[in-house]
Amino acid sequence: MKSTREPGVRVRARDLGIRIGSFEPGRFNAITDVRGVRVGHTTLIRGDAARSPQPGAGPVRTGVTAILPRSGNVYEAAAVSGGFVLNGAGELTGLTQVMEWGLIETPILLTNTLSVGTCSAAAVEYMVAAYPSIGREADVIIPVVGECDDSWLNDIAGGHVHANHVHDAIEGARSGPVAEGNVGGGTGMMTCGFKGGIGTSSRRLPEALGGYTVGVLVMSNFGMREDLRVDGIAVGRILAPRFTHLETRRSSYGSIIALVATDAPLISHQLSRVSKRVALGIGRSGSYAAHNSGEIVMAFSVTNSIPRQAKRSVYRLRVLLDAHIDPLYQAAVEATEEAILNALCMATDMVGVDGHFAPAIPLDDLREIYTRHKELDEQWNPV
Amino acid sequence: MKSTREPGVRVRARDLGIRIGSFEPGRFNAITDVRGVRVGHTTLIRGDAARSPQPGAGPVRTGVTAILPRSGNVYEAAAVSGGFVLNGAGELTGLTQVMEWGLIETPILLTNTLSVGTCSAAAVEYMVAAYPSIGREADVIIPVVGECDDSWLNDIAGGHVHANHVHDAIEGARSGPVAEGNVGGGTGMMTCGFKGGIGTSSRRLPEALGGYTVGVLVMSNFGMREDLRVDGIAVGRILAPRFTHLETRRSSYGSIIALVATDAPLISHQLSRVSKRVALGIGRSGSYAAHNSGEIVMAFSVTNSIPRQAKRSVYRLRVLLDAHIDPLYQAAVEATEEAILNALCMATDMVGVDGHFAPAIPLDDLREIYTRHKELDEQWNPV
Amino acid sequence: MKSTREPGVRVRARDLGIRIGSFEPGRFNAITDVRGVRVGHTTLIRGDAARSPQPGAGPVRTGVTAILPRSGNVYEAAAVSGGFVLNGAGELTGLTQVMEWGLIETPILLTNTLSVGTCSAAAVEYMVAAYPSIGREADVIIPVVGECDDSWLNDIAGGHVHANHVHDAIEGARSGPVAEGNVGGGTGMMTCGFKGGIGTSSRRLPEALGGYTVGVLVMSNFGMREDLRVDGIAVGRILAPRFTHLETRRSSYGSIIALVATDAPLISHQLSRVSKRVALGIGRSGSYAAHNSGEIVMAFSVTNSIPRQAKRSVYRLRVLLDAHIDPLYQAAVEATEEAILNALCMATDMVGVDGHFAPAIPLDDLREIYTRHKELDEQWNPV
Amino acid sequence: MKSTREPGVRVRARDLGIRIGSFEPGRFNAITDVRGVRVGHTTLIRGDAARSPQPGAGPVRTGVTAILPRSGNVYEAAAVSGGFVLNGAGELTGLTQVMEWGLIETPILLTNTLSVGTCSAAAVEYMVAAYPSIGREADVIIPVVGECDDSWLNDIAGGHVHANHVHDAIEGARSGPVAEGNVGGGTGMMTCGFKGGIGTSSRRLPEALGGYTVGVLVMSNFGMREDLRVDGIAVGRILAPRFTHLETRRSSYGSIIALVATDAPLISHQLSRVSKRVALGIGRSGSYAAHNSGEIVMAFSVTNSIPRQAKRSVYRLRVLLDAHIDPLYQAAVEATEEAILNALCMATDMVGVDGHFAPAIPLDDLREIYTRHKELDEQWNPV
Repeated sequence: MKSTREPGVRVRARDLGIRIGSFEPGRFNAITDVRGVRVGHTTLIRGDAARSPQPGAGPVRTGVTAILPRSGNVYEAAAVSGGFVLNGAGELTGLTQVMEWGLIETPILLTNTLSVGTCSAAAVEYMVAAYPSIGREADVIIPVVGECDDSWLNDIAGGHVHANHVHDAIEGARSGPVAEGNVGGGTGMMTCGFKGGIGTSSRRLPEALGGYTVGVLVMSNFGMREDLRVDGIAVGRILAPRFTHLETRRSSYGSIIALVATDAPLISHQLSRVSKRVALGIGRSGSYAAHNSGEIVMAFSVTNSIPRQAKRSVYRLRVLLDAHIDPLYQAAVEATEEAILNALCMATDMVGVDGHFAPAIPLDDLREIYTRHKELDEQWNPV
Repeated sequence: MKSTREPGVRVRARDLGIRIGSFEPGRFNAITDVRGVRVGHTTLIRGDAARSPQPGAGPVRTGVTAILPRSGNVYEAAAVSGGFVLNGAGELTGLTQVMEWGLIETPILLTNTLSVGTCSAAAVEYMVAAYPSIGREADVIIPVVGECDDSWLNDIAGGHVHANHVHDAIEGARSGPVAEGNVGGGTGMMTCGFKGGIGTSSRRLPEALGGYTVGVLVMSNFGMREDLRVDGIAVGRILAPRFTHLETRRSSYGSIIALVATDAPLISHQLSRVSKRVALGIGRSGSYAAHNSGEIVMAFSVTNSIPRQAKRSVYRLRVLLDAHIDPLYQAAVEATEEAILNALCMATDMVGVDGHFAPAIPLDDLREIYTRHKELDEQWNPV
Repeated sequence: MKSTREPGVRVRARDLGIRIGSFEPGRFNAITDVRGVRVGHTTLIRGDAARSPQPGAGPVRTGVTAILPRSGNVYEAAAVSGGFVLNGAGELTGLTQVMEWGLIETPILLTNTLSVGTCSAAAVEYMVAAYPSIGREADVIIPVVGECDDSWLNDIAGGHVHANHVHDAIEGARSGPVAEGNVGGGTGMMTCGFKGGIGTSSRRLPEALGGYTVGVLVMSNFGMREDLRVDGIAVGRILAPRFTHLETRRSSYGSIIALVATDAPLISHQLSRVSKRVALGIGRSGSYAAHNSGEIVMAFSVTNSIPRQAKRSVYRLRVLLDAHIDPLYQAAVEATEEAILNALCMATDMVGVDGHFAPAIPLDDLREIYTRHKELDEQWNPV
Repeated sequence: MKSTREPGVRVRARDLGIRIGSFEPGRFNAITDVRGVRVGHTTLIRGDAARSPQPGAGPVRTGVTAILPRSGNVYEAAAVSGGFVLNGAGELTGLTQVMEWGLIETPILLTNTLSVGTCSAAAVEYMVAAYPSIGREADVIIPVVGECDDSWLNDIAGGHVHANHVHDAIEGARSGPVAEGNVGGGTGMMTCGFKGGIGTSSRRLPEALGGYTVGVLVMSNFGMREDLRVDGIAVGRILAPRFTHLETRRSSYGSIIALVATDAPLISHQLSRVSKRVALGIGRSGSYAAHNSGEIVMAFSVTNSIPRQAKRSVYRLRVLLDAHIDPLYQAAVEATEEAILNALCMATDMVGVDGHFAPAIPLDDLREIYTRHKELDEQWNPV
């Protein structure tokens, strides 16, 4: 099969003909298909691959991604939220409160492990500037910042993320298409021995199943090359022999943060249950949640908002009957697998710290492997 | 490829040439490869498929499986234990205490949902007879009984499991090969639209990785036919069109209980972490943990035992350094997938309640689908 | 101060003038003040204190308590529910599902540790008889059965609880006043060295705080005599010297199961949060949650019900804004302390296994100790 | 009763004659009684009480407290650790990893809510400077930073905590006596309507019970005045009427972070269990864990350390048999109550933001109330 792409042009998995699961994606096949969700990136790539002996000298391969959960004012009207920790060898600050209260009331930030504090401080600055009553007449906030370890490519100890990068990511957040791969918090991340980073995907249920949208965005940084699975196919094992000449990152760098948005009317414990299914999608992509690989999931519903202040003490939530929740679980698994795959497909080769080389996954091979397996499947059930 | 099996003879996945993952199984490819672990079944199959209007009239398609965690006296010297609830839409009694204390001190029983109480009462009887000091000079015990819903094939409300069936399963527990498929607690269970039930598998790590054994036993009863994956291959989607003439069980019957044994020197929170990886293996087999499908995992180490009484207040545990735990995680994922697959491969056609028909998975097709996909994989990397 | 009670007559804490906290109780000062909640007991007291060498010969000091969470049909319209395990050294079967789904769909039973299985099996029988579609056209159920260890007084290994006792407790469940002390599941239980058992209390919030009712029922069996606190007063330490001639139960027998009902419109994670405050109330009564003492709490709201079947996939829940939840937390703490105290006040002396003697707490002393401390408090702030 | 203190001099609870519980404290009655544990404070008090319209103008009433868990190098040899979230309306960053891995490998910092990010970033700087291989050859770290909201007294949005304050607190950490009250992270905190802050206490078990030490340090900031209990006595209710002329902080500012150190050979899940008992101690002090009040506990054992690198994959842990753990639970409850009380006793009056006045608890009254209640108790059991 011939490629119709320009050589070197990266496309998303679906543009290679890959279909994960049975539901259709939303318009942008992105978390932004859920109404009101916005995503912004600050991408920091500076310096060549040699690293000087001192932290701070680069090379810089990192950034910040901001996800704004709701249109309007999430501080005044929080989104119902839940989460799940598959492997706690990582950090998503604020998760304790998100899970206690079952709501999210701030932007969500994604960055490298050692920049979490800087992003948290910058988020406070941003929120205080936006809502000057915070910490005065109004309640304080606890920022939500997730991390993965990009130190194999990035001078992580150099502290290259600054407050203005965070503010730019928040203010640049938009609906519509989402940049993927080597962008934002995902800039220096890898997935299963290939260059990874930010990926996203969505599913829109048929009207008969509620018509709800589920969007997933990942900062994907887990796994060894042999582990990678694409729609179940052992793509990692197939491709690994071609990359044996490369130095390989140890598994201890891994992690993945996954965020789920939906307009389905779910309440907190239902969103935590959805989050567990995201973990299954991560597993299907090849993760066995290695010891050092923090796998943390957070989910929110934009349909149900909870007012900070209200005249009446009782409000009403619309809630999906559990008997109808399975399609959302399936959609979450599908969108997670495809979001990880999009991170891989859209990322490009990167050289980083100490000349470490992270190869982009070869798209032509990926397409051919996938296509031939699907052709094989179809032999059993010709149309 | 031609089959060398006798027509209709069921064999395990590995006998079809299927290899899941990269580690080798232990001698029996069963949970009993972990020293001291014993398994016994009482299988109850009576009555033809018509069901009379009253519960109790059959047909009977159920039973009890007993797993004894340690050689010697598990009541006097408990095995270190942990667990994980992927989806709590099910029951494993005693899990609260197992997870609080980090140990298991009783046999483990698996049965149908409505027989949990009977099995629990029978376990008490058995333990009191074996250790007459229980509830007198010595502490009481809380039985550990897991369940899945076999009501699509079994007259579950008929109460066909009795105390003697439980006692027989415990007393019949043996090391060595484990009967699989339509046996014990798994007698009336289904998996992804095919006849399921009890399955088991093990992995033995290479000496360089510690030489530890991980064994998994499942009572597998989850999923719809389209969901089934075998080593990632969408076997369910491929085979489903041939079974559209059959009435299909609703997803709401599902569940899977998975038990993990190891001789690796793990402590409680490590075993809970292993249990989470078993959930990933369940996901790889096709589960998205449907709302009604209880996915519950329990794990124990036979190396570390905890004395009920001791002269000294401090004992020593050998503990595997976390930096060496990843192979055990991988082994747990692999053994889980293969245990589920063995349940499918060893189960035979069953007709049950109201004439419901549960077809065994067709082994020749399974082998051919698997083989041709593997051949395709190998084309990329010829030896 | 003179007693106006007849000598030996047991009264509730409030009848001694004891006031716990600042909110007023409901009409019956019982969990049944929450509309629709019903409680029934089967009390089994047979045989004198000598124990023959064989389990089964008695003496019998045990029973079953049944709590029906909702008027009408809890199986068809479940009550929203949550829970918390302070110390998992105990059992409340079904809790895994209650917390996963956030609802309760069965009666709740309380009994001795070794009768949990029997009660579970009897609950299945009862539910199948009441809803013959269970396990046929309709879903199976998982019974909810809690336990404490009454073996210091009761021939627990003798298996004296039978299915008919369970059915009687369920069918005898009533609104209105609740029998306390040596009744039902609490018959053979002790609390802090005194005779304990079943106790209940309620709080009704002022209208300005929502007017909601919180009811708590405990099966109380924890603690050593020195531990007991009554409204903070170290009553146990004060009274203990008078009882040094008695053989004392080891701490390892302990446990407490606490059930909370409310008509406040709470959802699952809010009810789990309420359950944690019940744990604080247990702590205030003197528990430090000893290793062997299972402290398990379950809570449900009768206002929010969840239909088993519904025409529409989305329903509405009324939800209390978290900003208004604190009075419910405080009410839960207060009602828990008073429920435990009522168990102590209403229980009477009991002689059981091997002549073990469980003294009732001396009410005149309790009143005097309490009264004089309160008088002392009031000296600082004379009206 | 006359005071022998100089007027206005603050002393610890024990110096007032108050005895909480039955075990004796260690030498310093502080968390530093556990060998190797060090505590340092940076206290920031600047500006008078008027607040200018802009954040940043003060007044400053805040700081940082650093707790170093082990002598030697906690990064190279982590301390076994566990924790418990009573109410997640707060933050202890890094807790996810601490609980996943069951160890702590960094200093622990306590500060105000909006300075968590700054402290986290500063902790990274400090660790990278101390261990330059972090993020290069060696693993990254996730800082552990806990917070309470001091905005009623402190210009919390002003961002007055800087990196050098964090470094000073870490480098100034010492064994021996610990400054309490308005110091470090506790500078601007209140407890039950009185000035609170940092408090600490310890218990040393008798040799017959193992001779272990349990130390607790709290940053205490919870509760309303009426809630306060001292050894069960309703001191808050007694004293509240004298303070009705003061403006009172809303309950929504509350929180408490509690840290527990011990030399008992406990493993992770045991330390999590100890942490739950600390929650009971918080409850006994008057907390019902109000909605907005984050109650988070972390515990570590200095006896069991876990090497970052090791030649052998298996190490040995000494583990206390659970049958001997109850005295540690009791000690944890006692030390928690006394640590909170010490924070109250050692804190002094403070005027802060907008002229808010936080009165120190009146020590003479506290002593008299306590003493007379104890005298009353002793009347029943004269020596």
